[in-house]
Amino acid sequence: MYQDFKITAGRPVYVQVKEYLKRLMVKGVLQPHQKLPSTRELSELMNVSRNTIISAYIGLEEDGLIYTQKGKGSYVAQMAISVTAPLLELNWKERMNSQALLAEEMDLMKHGIRAERGTISFTSIAPNEKLFDLGNVKRAFLDRMAVEGEVLLNYGYAKGYKPLIDLLKQYMEQKGVDLTGKDLLITNGFTEGLDLVLSALAKRNGAVICENPTHHTAIKNLRLHGYEVTGIDMERDGINLEQLEQVLSRQSFDCAYFIPSYHNPTGIVMSPQKRLELMRLMTRYQIPVIEDGFNEELRYSGSHVSPLIAAAGEGNGVIYLGSFSKVLFPGLRVGWVLADQELIYYLESLKRARSIHTSTLDQSILYQYLLNGNLDKYLRRARAEYKRKYEWTRRCCEAYMPYSLLTGDGGLHLFVSFAEGFDTRRLLELCKQRGVIFTPGDIFYTDGTGRETLRLGFSRVSDENIEAGIKIIGEAAKELLT
Amino acid sequence: MYQDFKITAGRPVYVQVKEYLKRLMVKGVLQPHQKLPSTRELSELMNVSRNTIISAYIGLEEDGLIYTQKGKGSYVAQMAISVTAPLLELNWKERMNSQALLAEEMDLMKHGIRAERGTISFTSIAPNEKLFDLGNVKRAFLDRMAVEGEVLLNYGYAKGYKPLIDLLKQYMEQKGVDLTGKDLLITNGFTEGLDLVLSALAKRNGAVICENPTHHTAIKNLRLHGYEVTGIDMERDGINLEQLEQVLSRQSFDCAYFIPSYHNPTGIVMSPQKRLELMRLMTRYQIPVIEDGFNEELRYSGSHVSPLIAAAGEGNGVIYLGSFSKVLFPGLRVGWVLADQELIYYLESLKRARSIHTSTLDQSILYQYLLNGNLDKYLRRARAEYKRKYEWTRRCCEAYMPYSLLTGDGGLHLFVSFAEGFDTRRLLELCKQRGVIFTPGDIFYTDGTGRETLRLGFSRVSDENIEAGIKIIGEAAKELLT
Repeated sequence: MYQDFKITAGRPVYVQVKEYLKRLMVKGVLQPHQKLPSTRELSELMNVSRNTIISAYIGLEEDGLIYTQKGKGSYVAQMAISVTAPLLELNWKERMNSQALLAEEMDLMKHGIRAERGTISFTSIAPNEKLFDLGNVKRAFLDRMAVEGEVLLNYGYAKGYKPLIDLLKQYMEQKGVDLTGKDLLITNGFTEGLDLVLSALAKRNGAVICENPTHHTAIKNLRLHGYEVTGIDMERDGINLEQLEQVLSRQSFDCAYFIPSYHNPTGIVMSPQKRLELMRLMTRYQIPVIEDGFNEELRYSGSHVSPLIAAAGEGNGVIYLGSFSKVLFPGLRVGWVLADQELIYYLESLKRARSIHTSTLDQSILYQYLLNGNLDKYLRRARAEYKRKYEWTRRCCEAYMPYSLLTGDGGLHLFVSFAEGFDTRRLLELCKQRGVIFTPGDIFYTDGTGRETLRLGFSRVSDENIEAGIKIIGEAAKELLT
Repeated sequence: MYQDFKITAGRPVYVQVKEYLKRLMVKGVLQPHQKLPSTRELSELMNVSRNTIISAYIGLEEDGLIYTQKGKGSYVAQMAISVTAPLLELNWKERMNSQALLAEEMDLMKHGIRAERGTISFTSIAPNEKLFDLGNVKRAFLDRMAVEGEVLLNYGYAKGYKPLIDLLKQYMEQKGVDLTGKDLLITNGFTEGLDLVLSALAKRNGAVICENPTHHTAIKNLRLHGYEVTGIDMERDGINLEQLEQVLSRQSFDCAYFIPSYHNPTGIVMSPQKRLELMRLMTRYQIPVIEDGFNEELRYSGSHVSPLIAAAGEGNGVIYLGSFSKVLFPGLRVGWVLADQELIYYLESLKRARSIHTSTLDQSILYQYLLNGNLDKYLRRARAEYKRKYEWTRRCCEAYMPYSLLTGDGGLHLFVSFAEGFDTRRLLELCKQRGVIFTPGDIFYTDGTGRETLRLGFSRVSDENIEAGIKIIGEAAKELLT
């Protein structure tokens, strides 16, 4: 005892001594009312200064773990519960509801493809952290802390950090949005925004309409909320409007979910013409639209395209979900919902009930980062680098991949379709053996189709590995095609 | 046009010029294909340097908002949607489900008591931000950023930031918890933890048992999840076990929710004896226990008391919800769920589906702050100050308040009960006119009772105002009592 104490670098030693002694008490090695060594003795036994021992004893006494008798020394206090109650053993799996079971079942991190060390992985569409301008993030933090550190660390508001709300409203106004009658709620990223909206909407028909394929997280969350998901085919310029209209004329939907500006996973940008037509249909059938603003900022070419919520003008039927996660830093969990002010009023209460509010530090860092004018500079650098990588990936696909369709007008990935009947799950098996993985496209489909597609995320793969990896996929695909 | 441009301090000017021009385009003041002034002309008109104008034009071109014709100049690009679609106007209130409506109805921030300027308010139980050690928080941030800034800003894991998970496990082990078969999930504070657990549990009986009164947020979330809430009376040393057993013998419950270590709102610490008895009952009736570790760290006296999850030993039936929100910084949205590893496995998937993960910055700052040994130092300072304030508040109550019971063994508030039939809502009306507000106790009751009680949060009230405020409440109470 005592002599086995080892110091860990970087933590105050008295805290470590205190924790060491506490552990002995909790484990029963030191018994209630047992006398502790004097501070001088213990200092020698543990080989730390006497002042350190004194500080540790003071701390233990404050926590009620030891008591001192004047002139006699320190003693271990009676631990409140040393006896254990009879064991309560439950079968938790049996106690899980269908939502929890489905969340686990659809959890790609648990059931997705795992890369072994050295594998070339095209599965990630997260930004490349080497591009992050850490210096500006640090500066934003220190700037903001200097202005109102105490405020940032105490409770904030469910609706969000006011300066950021105002800045994001301006930002959306510049995308052409008419803010009349609208309001903005800060969320823990896009995903919480979607979850809140789906949690608030009354379920009348139990059905949602969207593009097919679409964002896997959206399919997952729609199903978790008990919705039947109907997907509409994609064309080169966005959703197939004829098919959409046919379905709408036959069935009623509680809402629609669209990713018009940089569609995940196909990378297709919906044409301005289609946006108008789409909104006409939504108006005719009175369907609320959830617009996913995914990666709007990462298009590399073409003219400015306004989001659907801008096309909706004064109308209040579009709920816009925004986030800088993929554009800036995914670690900052900040997204927003821009929508009708009455809807936001209810979402705010739901948000408060569920998680009080989004991290104020994350919000204030993002705010100050934007205020300092870093977004433009960062985007310029990131776009240039991603565009270069995008073009390189595209060229490699053109050179080595026997695809039948290649889409992606920007962003951090390309979407590859092979001939009908092709099976990218089999392709993946083959490639995995050869040290390359990608995301099979079927997970993005609402109806179990899409076996002939795959998604290639290139943002975190080196140029050499992009070429090497695509070569391997291409060769394997050719083998399967013959 | 142009000459009305005004510079805001603290933002790069070229960004402001860019936004100014963008706004003119979005508003249609600048029309598609209209020629823009030369950079030299605009520099004079807007009274900024020519380089600034050049930077702004480059940015606008990159965003696809303007195009350049060699030798001719810059032109406004065709905005993708200038026509607005037919208006989609929805009645959102009609489209809200019962959960959203209930969340709004039970939202204390919307329907609570509002303080006018100058009012002495005892409604907050948030920590006093004047105690915050900002320097250590800044240091923790910079320390961590230096080690792995890129990692912190990219995606993290749903389960949490690994170093923090490990540290919190140690922390819980020191409270006497047997970690065998258990695991830990990081959440956005206590509230998200509770929401996740309630979202995962199968509803067999639709009923939950708890203390009466209890934490308002818990009542709200239990109801939002569709549970009927049965409250059991409190005694001076915790829940009334006879009453509990009676109810348990008559009715089945899906789970229990308890705040044993520093009960909100009564401030009562459940005795070690009662903890054991309580766990015996839970085992006999096979009821999962949700333990709220609220303010365990802010007791000022008495010996160390182990949480229920420690008393449960190897048993897996207790779900412990922890948070440093009230103890350290509420703005850092970090809490944790310590429970059976199979349960955590499902909660992790649910958390990922809903919000991907908790802010990594918040987690890493908390981690480094703890690692640097700041918690002990901070707690020593905070406890001393809150204890002083607590004793002062207690003395003021004893001197001026005609209460029949005064409880609170620590923490940041006291709970006052008056004679039966007394109405603290009427008292509040009177006090409000005289410039003092508090939280009427009925909101903490599961059954609409508790009209004779109130909660006094003292952490953010000055010593003078504590005395002045309690004097006013006491006098008004005496008037109502006669």
